[in-house]
Amino acid sequence: MATYTAHIDHTLIERVEHLISIKDEDSLRRLIDEMRPADAADLVEHLEPEGRLFIFNLLEPQDAGEVLIEMESPAQDLLLRDLDDQTISEIVQELDSDDAADLVGDLPEDRARSIIEAVENDVSDDLAKLLPYPEDTAGGIMALEFIAVRADLTVQDAIDSIRQRREEVENLYFLWVVDDFDRLVGVVSLKDLVIEPPNRKISDIMNTEVISVHTWTDQEEVARLVTKYDLVSIPVVDDYHRLVGRITHDDIIDVIEEEMDEDIARMAGVMTQEIAEESSLKISRARLPWLIAGVFGGILAAAVINQFETSLEQIIALSFFFPVIMAMGGNTGTQAATVVVRGLATGDISMVSIHKRLLMELRVALINGVICGALVGSIVAVWLSDIRLGSVVALAACLIVLNSGFIGSAVPFALKKFNIDPALATGPFVTTSNDILSLLVYLGLVSLYLEISGVGPN
Amino acid sequence: MATYTAHIDHTLIERVEHLISIKDEDSLRRLIDEMRPADAADLVEHLEPEGRLFIFNLLEPQDAGEVLIEMESPAQDLLLRDLDDQTISEIVQELDSDDAADLVGDLPEDRARSIIEAVENDVSDDLAKLLPYPEDTAGGIMALEFIAVRADLTVQDAIDSIRQRREEVENLYFLWVVDDFDRLVGVVSLKDLVIEPPNRKISDIMNTEVISVHTWTDQEEVARLVTKYDLVSIPVVDDYHRLVGRITHDDIIDVIEEEMDEDIARMAGVMTQEIAEESSLKISRARLPWLIAGVFGGILAAAVINQFETSLEQIIALSFFFPVIMAMGGNTGTQAATVVVRGLATGDISMVSIHKRLLMELRVALINGVICGALVGSIVAVWLSDIRLGSVVALAACLIVLNSGFIGSAVPFALKKFNIDPALATGPFVTTSNDILSLLVYLGLVSLYLEISGVGPN
Repeated sequence: MATYTAHIDHTLIERVEHLISIKDEDSLRRLIDEMRPADAADLVEHLEPEGRLFIFNLLEPQDAGEVLIEMESPAQDLLLRDLDDQTISEIVQELDSDDAADLVGDLPEDRARSIIEAVENDVSDDLAKLLPYPEDTAGGIMALEFIAVRADLTVQDAIDSIRQRREEVENLYFLWVVDDFDRLVGVVSLKDLVIEPPNRKISDIMNTEVISVHTWTDQEEVARLVTKYDLVSIPVVDDYHRLVGRITHDDIIDVIEEEMDEDIARMAGVMTQEIAEESSLKISRARLPWLIAGVFGGILAAAVINQFETSLEQIIALSFFFPVIMAMGGNTGTQAATVVVRGLATGDISMVSIHKRLLMELRVALINGVICGALVGSIVAVWLSDIRLGSVVALAACLIVLNSGFIGSAVPFALKKFNIDPALATGPFVTTSNDILSLLVYLGLVSLYLEISGVGPN
Repeated sequence: MATYTAHIDHTLIERVEHLISIKDEDSLRRLIDEMRPADAADLVEHLEPEGRLFIFNLLEPQDAGEVLIEMESPAQDLLLRDLDDQTISEIVQELDSDDAADLVGDLPEDRARSIIEAVENDVSDDLAKLLPYPEDTAGGIMALEFIAVRADLTVQDAIDSIRQRREEVENLYFLWVVDDFDRLVGVVSLKDLVIEPPNRKISDIMNTEVISVHTWTDQEEVARLVTKYDLVSIPVVDDYHRLVGRITHDDIIDVIEEEMDEDIARMAGVMTQEIAEESSLKISRARLPWLIAGVFGGILAAAVINQFETSLEQIIALSFFFPVIMAMGGNTGTQAATVVVRGLATGDISMVSIHKRLLMELRVALINGVICGALVGSIVAVWLSDIRLGSVVALAACLIVLNSGFIGSAVPFALKKFNIDPALATGPFVTTSNDILSLLVYLGLVSLYLEISGVGPN
């Protein structure tokens, strides 16, 4: 399995569909064999469910497994539903422990149990070790395929243990060093192993300053450490600092993209994995709560506007500017919230610097508020030929930008304090409350002016 | 340099500030020496510019370089401005080629030239090789520290060449294999080098199916390949397929986060690197265009509403629902656009599947449109005690959701077709056009109804 990176295009898909329709198993097997697993997964995802099943039943369990774990989860789930337990067991048998646990963990409980019973003992032992950990912890993403050696061994001993387990541990860049109680005490790079004399003691060449994570460490924290210290893999330890697993750079990239997807999904009120989702009902169900929240927010805004009906009756044109007012508040709030949410996610903004950040946002909002206020005020003054009304609107606009900038930057911090995902701050909830507050400031100030200037409600 | 991962808190910052104020150079040097470079960079960023400079002048060039390249770019730029050319040259001398090129590339042209003249020949040769490539290409992020061997050498020969260059090439997981013309022909993992007999030929153990990129390949494409095929490093070749550099997993994580930041910044109309920016004027200048675009969009919306003044005069309450109408259109459009933009960025949505995606979005919008329409229509019917007007609003709401869903999903594809960043689609421009279209549909349909039912303008 593997040649050069394939480009999945219409021609290839049509050819494969044709081969499936004439049941040309040999050509299909050859074609898939020549592709890298990630490309084969791409291809398979473009086929109809029956085509996917046909191809999977052609493949050897190991190849099938490699393709299966590269598939997006909705397509993977569908395929797993169609494959029988026997086939899935054979596939699980061949997977790395972390992939096997992910796959079995996603199955319905009764199927998972029957798969665990069907696989060989060493595999079911691995599954029993990994399945208890939540998916988003170090334990949930770690693999058990790593090589650990004692510090009192020699370089040659270490090389021998790599040779023994060469098939099992595919990607190997570091050996970890443990003491008699399996506690992690050091790390040796393969580079050092290559260049040091065979009779040298591991304890002489190991680096004792190893960054490790605990099985229960949140995966986001693991990603932060790997990213910050440019690690290629990170060891996972238990309560007694015993080495129990390893997480590699590719798992970390998956975590980063997953967390990013989650944040973006939460910002816009869509579901993660929506891209690969094939049921429009599911997508619709995921998006509706946001829309309905927006509708009720809008109705609340309508109730606010209703309070100022008399002002609107006097100057109907006041309603013309609702979109401007809401756009200003909405955009300002989103800008401030986006920066804070993103900063909190990457760790570039810490809770230590709340004050500094809020002050900065207020300064920015003040500058932008004055400029937008002057702009909107002038337009209103010209449009309604009323300079004083224009000035009132200018003041309102300035206050709206200030207020929205503050809310946008403060809410993510507040959410974080209460352990709620700050990403929710850029969603419709904050936008809606900014809309309402902005309308309140605008209509409130204008009504006050109308009242004072004597043209107010009688 | 390196111990356990440090936590930057107020106590540490205050202690360091105190040590700076009493000029206790020894304690400061010891404290920084015990930290990992990434932690030292975090700490330094929390200090005032004079404090940063004081610390940097204490450090050895190599340590200073390691800390400097871990700093966020606004803080890095400030510090570089304060350091003299002599110090920068000494630092550049010690950096890996890719970091050296990044640093020199960011300097003003005359300073860069004087640094290039000051460093030793091998370093200036490396800089001359790397500086011509644009920052966002494979050439712009690659390093020259890699080890290549000929295929006819033995395992022992390869090990000898690693030993010779052990200091220079710090992180080494793969050796690349080249022919007599330096063309890339294969790859050997260090694991294989460790376990194969010393007299074995490299050509016997190498994998000839190497994924490589061209110097001019866009960094996003490089990241996509590394992520897709779970690579730990990727070789870079020139027009003649000669091996010229390597890109490692940590560079790729940087690219992923950079592109993500760029997308998010473009979505919300903020600047990248804003988190570390210390000038509120610069931030304000970056955000203003979005706000002003929003204001002019809003004024356009005002002009649209103006056309329907007679309807508004008849039923002033029609204006109460502007926020609902705009929230529905805005949220629907953002949801659809977010999914497509994100999918195009990760490569999970290809231009091949435009039709499928648009159809899916229309189906989702139809379902959500009917539900939101029924909801909004009922509320309006009750509020205004007019079932027929409620039905008209229901129809309008349904059309608005359909239309916004279509625009939200179609615009990113269209932008991509014209080679414009699709991320712009989730910005205020699409939201504003959706606002305007939504108001047009709402006021248009309602006015038509008022006219037909005989209560229309006389």
